[in-house]
Amino acid sequence: MEIKIALVGCGNVGTAFIELLAEKRNELKNKFGFFFSLVMVSDKIKGTICNKNGFDIDELVLALHEEHNLSHFEQAKGNFQEVLLASGANFLAECTPTDFETGEPGMSHIKFALDNGISVSTTNKGPIALAIDDLKQIADGHGAKIFCEGTVLSGTPLLDLLKNGLAGCEILEVQGILNGTTNFILSQMEQGQTYEAALKKAQLLGFAEANPRQDVEAFDPAGKVLVLAKLIYGINVDFNSIKRIGITHVTKEMIEIAAKNNHRIKLIAGIHRDINGLHLYVMPRELENTHPLASVNGATNAITLTTDNLGDITLIGPGAGRRETGQALLHDLIEFARTK
Amino acid sequence: MEIKIALVGCGNVGTAFIELLAEKRNELKNKFGFFFSLVMVSDKIKGTICNKNGFDIDELVLALHEEHNLSHFEQAKGNFQEVLLASGANFLAECTPTDFETGEPGMSHIKFALDNGISVSTTNKGPIALAIDDLKQIADGHGAKIFCEGTVLSGTPLLDLLKNGLAGCEILEVQGILNGTTNFILSQMEQGQTYEAALKKAQLLGFAEANPRQDVEAFDPAGKVLVLAKLIYGINVDFNSIKRIGITHVTKEMIEIAAKNNHRIKLIAGIHRDINGLHLYVMPRELENTHPLASVNGATNAITLTTDNLGDITLIGPGAGRRETGQALLHDLIEFARTK
Repeated sequence: MEIKIALVGCGNVGTAFIELLAEKRNELKNKFGFFFSLVMVSDKIKGTICNKNGFDIDELVLALHEEHNLSHFEQAKGNFQEVLLASGANFLAECTPTDFETGEPGMSHIKFALDNGISVSTTNKGPIALAIDDLKQIADGHGAKIFCEGTVLSGTPLLDLLKNGLAGCEILEVQGILNGTTNFILSQMEQGQTYEAALKKAQLLGFAEANPRQDVEAFDPAGKVLVLAKLIYGINVDFNSIKRIGITHVTKEMIEIAAKNNHRIKLIAGIHRDINGLHLYVMPRELENTHPLASVNGATNAITLTTDNLGDITLIGPGAGRRETGQALLHDLIEFARTK
Repeated sequence: MEIKIALVGCGNVGTAFIELLAEKRNELKNKFGFFFSLVMVSDKIKGTICNKNGFDIDELVLALHEEHNLSHFEQAKGNFQEVLLASGANFLAECTPTDFETGEPGMSHIKFALDNGISVSTTNKGPIALAIDDLKQIADGHGAKIFCEGTVLSGTPLLDLLKNGLAGCEILEVQGILNGTTNFILSQMEQGQTYEAALKKAQLLGFAEANPRQDVEAFDPAGKVLVLAKLIYGINVDFNSIKRIGITHVTKEMIEIAAKNNHRIKLIAGIHRDINGLHLYVMPRELENTHPLASVNGATNAITLTTDNLGDITLIGPGAGRRETGQALLHDLIEFARTK
């Protein structure tokens, strides 16, 4: 079997995915039993290239490393849709930037691909949060599949765990550390730094944006908990109905007092179920030191799923990173090959 | 599609599996798209019953709860092999007790089923540790499959994580808390108890056997790490070559000194890779408090897998329990239905 891969969005994650394809090609053949070719790469800034017979991946990796663009190759003629169809791809890796309001440009890419029977793996939270039901329906109607492991916790396989590992379990409660930046800041504050100093350090290290509002006011983890509510419970929640409290009011003193009680303060994103339904929230919470999320430090992410059959299951791993998110695309590619 | 299930070994785990089948039958139909019938139950002590059309599961659960045996039903005539073939089963749930030396009686059950094209899910570590290669080969040769999620960490889906979630990752190092009894004893000792008092408490609570050697001298986690080495790296290791040190020499004082250095002592079962190959071990190790395994308390199990693409991935969950291990069989049944 040969899988013809197109990639749209060739930034850090897209480039890491190409590197992984180069590195793992023998394993994909020997262990998972499939060949692939990379027939198209499209990036708003770097250009669009297409080769129905597949690019030389090593040459492509080298060009991306040396020139940081695709000018080494002849540019394809036509718009994204035309080139995608001409490429003969049957699998699209979509890693354009997230827009929670419109889902674009990912939404159009994904819909067009699925409409044409091309399966998709996306790392873009926007289209999944906004329209996963529609996208699944389009996919079903055209013999295609949609995968999105990379939309939550990068390549840490939470969605796979929910689908495969915990098959047969009911999820009764979700509690997670879904934002690495704020967890890094809180970890720094535990070591005695003020909020301001810790934020500055996060910015210097590239964890936090110059405008850190998405993280510290918890918009980012709220978006992730929205995706989880959709994927676990199949419900649509209005973003504004999520109880959302960031870490801007957490002080060094609060953390010290918590520590004296053998507690740690963590920004917890969760879904709580009671007789009134599901409640989505992100807020700083004091956890006992023995809670499995309490010892999760730095930029690491983690999630505790309370289940009917197994009690608490906790998964800890990276929440971001270029290779880590590239792994999510590789995971989805392997799943596509297995179920094709 | 209808799956015809036979069960051999109707102790705590087998009974929990039947309860789960009763509880989840609608979900299995609606969410996973399959019907099942339970056509045979065989237990060395409780008896053997067979009904080609499927038993009334509620009646079966009631009889097991009230009479603790199968005398409510007409006993089947013939030996295990004859009854299994007569039942028309296409899926055998095998949960007889583990014997690491011969693998029996599970080995014979599993081989016979696979030889006759009947897929198997087993919670029995013996046959998997001793002969997984042979069993896979028999399965392949007869259009059957063999599943064994319940052989490590009960229903905590470690094997699924390795197969599906981490597909595409290389496992560079394995470190786990794979024995709940010893982790419970060490947790009690951290709270000030002596080894002897903690062991006695574990025995009173039913965590530890009257003869606790399997646990405290680390034979049990050594057996699990043997299974992991086989499943992750495909290698056969002689049990006696595993470096195995139990917790009998760990003192309250050692734990107190570790605590002063912000360390905790855990019995770690692991696989270490270096230029000389793979090294399997179980031994008490001092972990920094920030290590993801350091905060795993009581009878809970956990494993940290160091990978090339994702760094450290940690999974924490139950390591034993009747419903928890029943869930492993349910997981395998769903996987069988999905891939049938």
